[in-house]
Amino acid sequence: MKTKTIKSISSLKKIIKTIKLSNKSIGFVPTMGYLHEGHLSLIRASKKENDITIVSIYVNPTQFGANEDFNIYPRDYKRDYLLINQLNVNYLFYPNNEIMYPIGYSTFVDVDNYNKILEGEFRPTHFRGVTTIVAKLLNITQPTIMYLGQKDAQQAFILTKMCQDLNFDCKIKIMPIIRDENGLALSSRNVRLNKDDYQLALQLNKTLKLGKELFLKNHSITTDKLLNACQNYIKKFDKISVDYIACRSVKKFDEIPKITEKCYLLIAAKVGNVRLIDNIILG
Amino acid sequence: MKTKTIKSISSLKKIIKTIKLSNKSIGFVPTMGYLHEGHLSLIRASKKENDITIVSIYVNPTQFGANEDFNIYPRDYKRDYLLINQLNVNYLFYPNNEIMYPIGYSTFVDVDNYNKILEGEFRPTHFRGVTTIVAKLLNITQPTIMYLGQKDAQQAFILTKMCQDLNFDCKIKIMPIIRDENGLALSSRNVRLNKDDYQLALQLNKTLKLGKELFLKNHSITTDKLLNACQNYIKKFDKISVDYIACRSVKKFDEIPKITEKCYLLIAAKVGNVRLIDNIILG
Repeated sequence: MKTKTIKSISSLKKIIKTIKLSNKSIGFVPTMGYLHEGHLSLIRASKKENDITIVSIYVNPTQFGANEDFNIYPRDYKRDYLLINQLNVNYLFYPNNEIMYPIGYSTFVDVDNYNKILEGEFRPTHFRGVTTIVAKLLNITQPTIMYLGQKDAQQAFILTKMCQDLNFDCKIKIMPIIRDENGLALSSRNVRLNKDDYQLALQLNKTLKLGKELFLKNHSITTDKLLNACQNYIKKFDKISVDYIACRSVKKFDEIPKITEKCYLLIAAKVGNVRLIDNIILG
Repeated sequence: MKTKTIKSISSLKKIIKTIKLSNKSIGFVPTMGYLHEGHLSLIRASKKENDITIVSIYVNPTQFGANEDFNIYPRDYKRDYLLINQLNVNYLFYPNNEIMYPIGYSTFVDVDNYNKILEGEFRPTHFRGVTTIVAKLLNITQPTIMYLGQKDAQQAFILTKMCQDLNFDCKIKIMPIIRDENGLALSSRNVRLNKDDYQLALQLNKTLKLGKELFLKNHSITTDKLLNACQNYIKKFDKISVDYIACRSVKKFDEIPKITEKCYLLIAAKVGNVRLIDNIILG
């Protein structure tokens, strides 16, 4: 069966109602399109673990700041459709802005405490946009499991918190980062890197690996010392403008003085005109 | 069958899942308890129109400001249970604060544009608390129809907007205000009025009725003139402290210069220590 593309909320809701009545499980993969192997790994997991898989493609305007890259964010519906269809996805939800944010739209979801730090410090309205659109998508698709990528670790943490707090009836699975042959974390934004910037962008992952090495050599290294070493390494590259390098626990996303539990080591930086993020798990 | 009281979210979710699989409709009446005929009219409507009726009783702390009446809000579970059981309600959801807002709770829903006016001006965090708790309750109970009282007209408007905006799969029915024999809109807070204040409280409805008379006499009266007349009437009562008298369209809750469509005429005032609200529909 070919993947069915659905653009209207009410059509999709009708389909979901029938699926739910037959007690089938629904796997959901929300994306902004321009799919890469990272997305495809989420879709494969969903196909394996659920009766029905729904993928959404929607470049959500509310999660982009006024000076960000909403307009130049890469889009290619035809290519995305082919990839999705190859993976036997059942439904592709592909709405437009008029449907998702009709005139007079007013409702927003915030996960306080976590939405103004790290990414939120540099993109102050970003997570409000993310949690709002995902709350909408969850109500529309009513998934059994939603699949998210670890590359956006803070986003995955915040969405997990939102689902718990608002009592959404949905499990969340966070899938590992997929990297290219040189270690660059896959991102739809990578397409915007020129040759030189691509080489520079590899330094993000190298910085994280340096941090991991330091931790493996000395498990009781302080977080401050580890972060300083990473900062000192990457600051040698003039054309990389680091927004933050940080360490947060996987469980509660809080700062800890030493790596006594599983932690994300996170980095965000601008390389040329492209803002990239990456992370690695320590502990 | 006696009404079953359920205190845990997971227990209720299990029951809801079974109801949903059998394609039965669910009517939901969210309350803060201390039930009066207003609540009972919502419950009766739900019983009539749905296979299963769920009532929740929860005095939601996040919708009370720091200086408001959360601690003295009237509570009487035993009496409420008897009333609910008499009406053959299927399930009473009666959670506690630890369950609804566990330690670390962080997620809030806001309906911007409408949550800082009128009630929101005098109770700045009130609607954030209301929309948050109702979003949670909707995810837990997954109703076909939610029943709300017109007495809280702005709340009903905001919750309707939230359901539309966030794509909740739930209709909303707003049921008429129920009044006592002297015209006072029923409210759980009325129990806190002493004899003299009760007499004064009757002036709220009288003010609204004066407004309605003026409109019926002259359909093209300006909203300003009508509101001024109401203000002038009620300001004679020293012990009534008016927060606002306002006119808002039923459809969009916006201000209009003349009553050219269905409007709420709304009043909020403190009588003694008790803050009361009321409204009436014009047009």
